Amino acid sequence: MNDLDRLASQIVAGSVRALARGLTWVEAGGERAADLSERLYPQTGRAHVIGITGSPGSGKSTLVRALARAARQRGRTVGILAVDPSSPYSGGAILGDRIRMNDLALDPGVFIRSMATRGALGGLARAAADAVDLMDAAGRDPIFVETVGVGQDEVEIAGTADTVVVVSVPGLGDDVQAIKAGVLEIADIHAVNKADREGADRIIAELRAMLTLLPAREGVRVPPVMACVAAREEGVDALLDAIGAHMDELKAGDALEPRRAKRAQQRVLRIAHETLTRAMGDPALHMAPLVARVARRELGPHAAARALLAALRDAKT
Amino acid sequence: MNDLDRLASQIVAGSVRALARGLTWVEAGGERAADLSERLYPQTGRAHVIGITGSPGSGKSTLVRALARAARQRGRTVGILAVDPSSPYSGGAILGDRIRMNDLALDPGVFIRSMATRGALGGLARAAADAVDLMDAAGRDPIFVETVGVGQDEVEIAGTADTVVVVSVPGLGDDVQAIKAGVLEIADIHAVNKADREGADRIIAELRAMLTLLPAREGVRVPPVMACVAAREEGVDALLDAIGAHMDELKAGDALEPRRAKRAQQRVLRIAHETLTRAMGDPALHMAPLVARVARRELGPHAAARALLAALRDAKT
Repeated sequence: MNDLDRLASQIVAGSVRALARGLTWVEAGGERAADLSERLYPQTGRAHVIGITGSPGSGKSTLVRALARAARQRGRTVGILAVDPSSPYSGGAILGDRIRMNDLALDPGVFIRSMATRGALGGLARAAADAVDLMDAAGRDPIFVETVGVGQDEVEIAGTADTVVVVSVPGLGDDVQAIKAGVLEIADIHAVNKADREGADRIIAELRAMLTLLPAREGVRVPPVMACVAAREEGVDALLDAIGAHMDELKAGDALEPRRAKRAQQRVLRIAHETLTRAMGDPALHMAPLVARVARRELGPHAAARALLAALRDAKT
Repeated sequence: MNDLDRLASQIVAGSVRALARGLTWVEAGGERAADLSERLYPQTGRAHVIGITGSPGSGKSTLVRALARAARQRGRTVGILAVDPSSPYSGGAILGDRIRMNDLALDPGVFIRSMATRGALGGLARAAADAVDLMDAAGRDPIFVETVGVGQDEVEIAGTADTVVVVSVPGLGDDVQAIKAGVLEIADIHAVNKADREGADRIIAELRAMLTLLPAREGVRVPPVMACVAAREEGVDALLDAIGAHMDELKAGDALEPRRAKRAQQRVLRIAHETLTRAMGDPALHMAPLVARVARRELGPHAAARALLAALRDAKT
């Protein structure tokens, strides 16, 4: 039995240590990560994957922690992936570190992992999807994928979940609400956190009004707007119920398969993109002199892109 | 002379109508767009490309308009590209429409174009780079690339410029400032707009303090922080001077070539990525059944990605 086989079977057997090691492979990327992913892939697709996104300051980590605790009380073993693509320049996973410090870290029934961007084009979304798979193969269900911030990457990563929960909060300025435009449209459920604050009724009313304005998608019901106070665990059980109800609806309406097919397509594309990005930096493929010619305007960028694809072909055949 | 040759030579000759038509090709993407880009590429690299980014509400469009007017007074012919990747779901180029309505639209020495996202993975950044090239080949110099919002895409697009101006404004909340973290690090010049408002001195002082905290990059001076009131055209000439001085510095420090080489590399990669994205949707390559097998967990996503790259090879050889 080689390293890969051993690690894969330990992950499936539920070893937390093996899962952590596998996630380190997956984060580093490359062939070993791909092999591990492929090996475990047939064991995946069983977990309910829940994306949690929303403005900074909306209390997402606290809410995820409360949801995990509620799921634990229902006898589930939970996975949490906290993804922070906020800056391609600084790195570091502040959020994950913050989460690790709390009481959940002592419960082996909750596995928490944080991931930060490496500045790779699309690499983080690929790694996040692989990480979810590993947790899925390890029997974690549900798996929460929490993203920091509200940019397009966050939307993309949260959007790969079965159920997307968008967290809002009373008292943030209009600017922040405006940024959220793209996020609104991927929400399956809206959670208004810190609902004991002034302005909660107004934001709930506003969200409901906005939702009626969105173009109706066939077979898709208007997302519910749920109030909660995560820090006091109020409304969290009801939110977890709503998340479960959404999955039931997906299954009943034959909407789960198309949703996962779309997710699979994006994922295949991301992996192919990452292969190209790696090829660009691979000294054996000699792309640097070509790029220098592009910079000097001796060669067009489209011709160089074709050369990159051809180099990949010659290297891999 | 075929369509492409005619259009290319009309663009180089400075025809505004031909430039507009070429940009429509470039926005649509595909082979025709690539051919036009490649044809014009040797005529590019002459313009000073200036990226303008910053928080929503910071008055970027007004500032770009004022900068364009100042450049006109110096006898330059200006290009403006307003890029709006804020939502992959809604589309539409609000900003460009707003710009088009103003006095500059009557001056043929200022060419304005807006571009919105099409939901393509990386497609907008590719199209934006091609659009800048077309304006460059048409003799526009300087070219302003204005991005709406502060996400990673905006950072990426603004970051492809020779000089990046990050616009701040007094009176926005801390949340918005926090989101800006990734943007701070790509700034060559900081412009504090609406500097007649209360709090301007504070934000200027804060920016200067923050800049001293950034890790020093070799050969890179600390970015200047410039105050302006774009709506009253105050401080705009000085800002344009600072932008020009930055280009002089780049040239004097032999920093322009490495910067453009890095830009060329990202660009080649983006084009290759877009080729893959198109291949995924190309019915002739039969990727859909493969993706369906991935969704059913019969085939791993990494194996499917290899199949996509192979399909592209077989189609293109």
